[in-house]
Amino acid sequence: MSEQKPEYEGKAKQVLPSDDPNVIIQRFKDSATAFNAQKKAEFDGKGRLNNAISCFLFRKLEEAGIATHFIERSSEREMRCHRLQIVPLEVVVRNVAAGSLSKRLGWPEGRALSGSIVETYYKRDELGDPMLCDSHIELLELCTAEELAQIRASARRVNEVLLPIFAEAGLTLVDFKLEYGFDAAGQLLLGDEISPDNCRLWDIETQKKFDKDVFRRDLADLVETYEEVARRLGVEAEG
Amino acid sequence: MSEQKPEYEGKAKQVLPSDDPNVIIQRFKDSATAFNAQKKAEFDGKGRLNNAISCFLFRKLEEAGIATHFIERSSEREMRCHRLQIVPLEVVVRNVAAGSLSKRLGWPEGRALSGSIVETYYKRDELGDPMLCDSHIELLELCTAEELAQIRASARRVNEVLLPIFAEAGLTLVDFKLEYGFDAAGQLLLGDEISPDNCRLWDIETQKKFDKDVFRRDLADLVETYEEVARRLGVEAEG
Repeated sequence: MSEQKPEYEGKAKQVLPSDDPNVIIQRFKDSATAFNAQKKAEFDGKGRLNNAISCFLFRKLEEAGIATHFIERSSEREMRCHRLQIVPLEVVVRNVAAGSLSKRLGWPEGRALSGSIVETYYKRDELGDPMLCDSHIELLELCTAEELAQIRASARRVNEVLLPIFAEAGLTLVDFKLEYGFDAAGQLLLGDEISPDNCRLWDIETQKKFDKDVFRRDLADLVETYEEVARRLGVEAEG
Repeated sequence: MSEQKPEYEGKAKQVLPSDDPNVIIQRFKDSATAFNAQKKAEFDGKGRLNNAISCFLFRKLEEAGIATHFIERSSEREMRCHRLQIVPLEVVVRNVAAGSLSKRLGWPEGRALSGSIVETYYKRDELGDPMLCDSHIELLELCTAEELAQIRASARRVNEVLLPIFAEAGLTLVDFKLEYGFDAAGQLLLGDEISPDNCRLWDIETQKKFDKDVFRRDLADLVETYEEVARRLGVEAEG
């Protein structure tokens, strides 16, 4: 495990420098937060599980030809990644109505969408991560229209790759959040993590929740839940 | 004034049938509401003023070749309009940051936008008129992508026509809300009203507010304010 001091400390991860200035170490913490960090707790094993699941899924995306920041799993709770200049957007892909989409449209949670949709939110905690439409992104100059189209196309492709992987694990990929950034060469790469922290996963048969909603809504033990996701996906969770 | 019973009663207007099934009478009430009708009051003269201002501006738009529902001012507080099948969208055009855009982006009220933007909101009081992006509009099947492009283009054109009219009156057109619908022949027309009820108007020199914000925020007498707008525009307010 890297002994370096973090250069960035997030709610669920740290970013540490590596021996290569263009490579960072993404370290998964055991902390869980919800409701813009108003609810917090520690879960022994969460960091290890999210790192393992995330590395597993990034490998699948790379195999499918999607450009990501993932290089390798470098320890139990760490992954080596290309350093990114992050586009301050949270890119949400949805297949089934839930959460804020249900509220926005007045649609019951669980209603299947006629087609998947991609939403964009401004990555600004102090503003409550508000939704942005294309005109806002242009106004804020967060990226060019061409880059935004590239991000949306990649996000749809990620969805196409992940849907069958989760379906084989008996899970519906309801929605998930992605982040993108530019590497040193200016290439647009998928960044961040892909784990039950930023995906909504429901059992295909029972609709039981297998994601951070178990923590948000106190529905089940978080670590047992994430372990079950890893087990179903066939992830090797040990370092 | 029409003696018919309203077929629709809104917060600030009534819709009455006319002798022609494809024509309705839009009658402006003296009521003002704000914050989704949580704040309400009556203002003697408001209906007459909004009708006069609205008819004046619709005439200008028609002269500029924009297709609207406006036929004629038929009485002091009434206008005859083509009957529309309304697209349930509130189309907001913004030139200067204010209101929900300031909150969304964390921008101070009064910051000029680098270019005007068009936003779309779902016309559903019970949901609080949430903002919709293109993907939501498609999902809800509120209109086709082509119709949405037509609406956006018309809204930008309306802005281009209104900006100099208000500038000549010493007023900055900060933002305004439009509604669109289809007439009996399936033509897309601009509907609703254009008045200080659904425009933000600031004095160019002093930034003093000349719109419904004077009621929302108890800043000035509403009728005197609207009278001043009518006077500056050169509107003949008498029936």
